[in-house]
Amino acid sequence: MVRCILIRGSGKGLKEITNQVTEQVRESGIENGLCTLFIQHTSASLLIQENADPDVCHDIENWLSRLIPEHDPLYTHTAEGPDDMPAHLRSMLTQTSVSIPVQDSCLMLGTWQGIFLFEHRRNRSDRRVLIHLASDG
Amino acid sequence: MVRCILIRGSGKGLKEITNQVTEQVRESGIENGLCTLFIQHTSASLLIQENADPDVCHDIENWLSRLIPEHDPLYTHTAEGPDDMPAHLRSMLTQTSVSIPVQDSCLMLGTWQGIFLFEHRRNRSDRRVLIHLASDG
Amino acid sequence: MVRCILIRGSGKGLKEITNQVTEQVRESGIENGLCTLFIQHTSASLLIQENADPDVCHDIENWLSRLIPEHDPLYTHTAEGPDDMPAHLRSMLTQTSVSIPVQDSCLMLGTWQGIFLFEHRRNRSDRRVLIHLASDG
Repeated sequence: MVRCILIRGSGKGLKEITNQVTEQVRESGIENGLCTLFIQHTSASLLIQENADPDVCHDIENWLSRLIPEHDPLYTHTAEGPDDMPAHLRSMLTQTSVSIPVQDSCLMLGTWQGIFLFEHRRNRSDRRVLIHLASDG
Repeated sequence: MVRCILIRGSGKGLKEITNQVTEQVRESGIENGLCTLFIQHTSASLLIQENADPDVCHDIENWLSRLIPEHDPLYTHTAEGPDDMPAHLRSMLTQTSVSIPVQDSCLMLGTWQGIFLFEHRRNRSDRRVLIHLASDG
Repeated sequence: MVRCILIRGSGKGLKEITNQVTEQVRESGIENGLCTLFIQHTSASLLIQENADPDVCHDIENWLSRLIPEHDPLYTHTAEGPDDMPAHLRSMLTQTSVSIPVQDSCLMLGTWQGIFLFEHRRNRSDRRVLIHLASDG
């Protein structure tokens, strides 16, 4: 059972999607099982991180921007703009798929965990995240 | 079927948990399927790495400590101590979930692979790792 | 249902394996479900990345080589050669397992996504990638 959520483009950075995923889990009627998220892009990725203090997301964005600057003379893949190759590198360092157990129809996230779409490009493309739900037993 | 293992706090660094996971697989009675681990934290993570030479874990810890130093003036999320924001960044670069096939009741790890809990904080909190086991057919 | 593909050694860098994985999915007869890849090594890893412009793979390889140079005096795990510890660090920053939904017998990859084996050592060892296929319903 594969569902898809479309995340409207809103520019670079971490965008929490926990509520959208939770809603899909609820609508599916699954009680116990495994929820696997898969993002169909190579310039945006997935991350499970702290969703309590927004400073964490802010610092993550700034740290990656410093580690992987634009206009690095190392890049040869530059035709699509200065943020394109950094976006591929940032995607590489984070996740294309993550799996979260489901119990009693709830995602078993930790107290401080949220699910984020990590947009690595400045352009505001929409992004597709697939949600596979496997039911136990 | 979700199980949970509690890892007693023991400070920063890689702590092998292969035996605890293997024991849960054995106790579950699963023969063939998929074992998915999920850590319910954002300052500790999961890693599958070489478990033969302890120097590998030692070098990994030191390399990450150098790449992501404490007291970086970039950080704004500093209220919980100098090792807090580095812990989030180290978690981002490693794994929140990993999946390992199971055959004949054994985790199909490679010869040199071990499963590690990667503690990124100096404080000695206990950590929870969920184990989802899905049986084939 | 676990299958194994053997990737012949061909030196350092990204090697696309999408066709080999697609073939295994087709041979299995699975229609809808989840495909989980697991690499049984700690000096080679998995990555889903752009497979349209080969410059992306080229830049990824060069960027990681610069971030994680050989002969770094920090390394103590050096007995197996100068590319050994960098290989473990590169594996840590990429993936040991990835999961991709399957629908109508097709991997649901995005338009620009390919599956890559990422070889981090210069020696030309063969590598084993396990493919677990779970069928829905």
